[in-house]
Amino acid sequence: MADPAARPGAETPDAASLAAPRTLRLVLSYDGTAFHGWQIQPDVPTVQGVLLARARAVLGGEARLVGASRTDAGVHALRQVASLATTSRLPASAIMAALNAGLPPAMRVLEAAEAPPTFDARRSAAGKRYLYVIDAGAIAAPLLVRYAWHVRGRLDLDAMRAGLAALRGRHDFSAFCAAPGREADPMCLVRALHVRRVKTRVAILVSADRFLHHMVRNIVGSAVEVARGARAPAWLAEVLAGKDRTRAGPTAPAHGLTLVRVLYPR
Amino acid sequence: MADPAARPGAETPDAASLAAPRTLRLVLSYDGTAFHGWQIQPDVPTVQGVLLARARAVLGGEARLVGASRTDAGVHALRQVASLATTSRLPASAIMAALNAGLPPAMRVLEAAEAPPTFDARRSAAGKRYLYVIDAGAIAAPLLVRYAWHVRGRLDLDAMRAGLAALRGRHDFSAFCAAPGREADPMCLVRALHVRRVKTRVAILVSADRFLHHMVRNIVGSAVEVARGARAPAWLAEVLAGKDRTRAGPTAPAHGLTLVRVLYPR
Repeated sequence: MADPAARPGAETPDAASLAAPRTLRLVLSYDGTAFHGWQIQPDVPTVQGVLLARARAVLGGEARLVGASRTDAGVHALRQVASLATTSRLPASAIMAALNAGLPPAMRVLEAAEAPPTFDARRSAAGKRYLYVIDAGAIAAPLLVRYAWHVRGRLDLDAMRAGLAALRGRHDFSAFCAAPGREADPMCLVRALHVRRVKTRVAILVSADRFLHHMVRNIVGSAVEVARGARAPAWLAEVLAGKDRTRAGPTAPAHGLTLVRVLYPR
Repeated sequence: MADPAARPGAETPDAASLAAPRTLRLVLSYDGTAFHGWQIQPDVPTVQGVLLARARAVLGGEARLVGASRTDAGVHALRQVASLATTSRLPASAIMAALNAGLPPAMRVLEAAEAPPTFDARRSAAGKRYLYVIDAGAIAAPLLVRYAWHVRGRLDLDAMRAGLAALRGRHDFSAFCAAPGREADPMCLVRALHVRRVKTRVAILVSADRFLHHMVRNIVGSAVEVARGARAPAWLAEVLAGKDRTRAGPTAPAHGLTLVRVLYPR
């Protein structure tokens, strides 16, 4: 729930604290339904907690794990990226196989590759892409229940697109941040923001250089207010300019959100 | 597990046994993970059992429910059709809302409409369409785990298509039937059989006038033997002609199968 800056080192002592560390770049996919978010916590399964426990069991010694995105409880990932610091000398492919052999089916390491010791999945990232899925059918589809937010009633997607256009480009996104006062830098560059309808589903794709806490879910919650006709399209630009979270719409539920990709330079 | 002919009336006393019955045509969707198949059973949740209990609770009196397809445990449905005989006088839309209000999120009634008293979801059906999804990625994708069969290794889909071509048309499908001796009529008309690849997923769509028990899963299991190169494409035609279940490949797992649509005359 807190922003990253408030807890320096809570999840990730730097790799230098490991004897002769080696850094791997892991690509992960997970069904967020099964986890209480990314961040390690006592007594509940989290993505970081489960993967780190597995890494320590199969690699021996210490291990450090940094995720590019600290996904909330219920948020899914198609290709999350993590840096794993380990003293193990096993080949990357063997490490991947050993990790997967003991992970629950809801989580898999899709790729593992050697990375420079300076690689940090979060700090090295140049951008991320998220997908938010809305089930706009009259009745909530059972096969989408885990992966989409069911929104009743007619949605005017042209109005939603017109309103969201104001969010493209570099802006102060404090109005869409869960804890605006605590975020070190509220400026984000939104490179792409698309809305597509496929039958009864609405897909909202957001690509940016960085994201504030709950930013996609707050943007989607406000965009749905516009699509429902409760607000005019221009309201989204006003909310953005006001930099006041209390003026934006509700936060869309976590389970409709999927981290699609993390982008790195080159 | 048994075929329909072996247990006449086991699930569905005919509508005439209800006082002043009225027949509704329901369209249902469900996530099969949550149910032990369609057919009502003691002590375990089944689609028919959960829906019938709900119907009796909200409609009062007796209710009879016939499903077009008796889906196996783990099989999903996008649009299953059921006939519901009831003495309730509530409008169909109110019945649908009342049913949905008490069903688990894994099952929903998508449509409810008046039907002629002679309508029987199973006997009136003129055909069905099933979709089987294979996850052909190197690592089993966590977001497909509930809905696709993960098959490792390279799959030659051209070989699979060439082999499956022999199954189109009207044939005796005993070779692909779980209990061939007990099936009253082994003849089925396969109207369409398509194989499509979408990224790492393979979708096999089968449309026929009727299906024998486990028929799609047995066809897919054998088709994968061909795609893997363990059998030549022509082997599928030989298996079909042999009418011997023991010569076919393994049964593909249930969770990759989805009932897509039930077709009725007109």
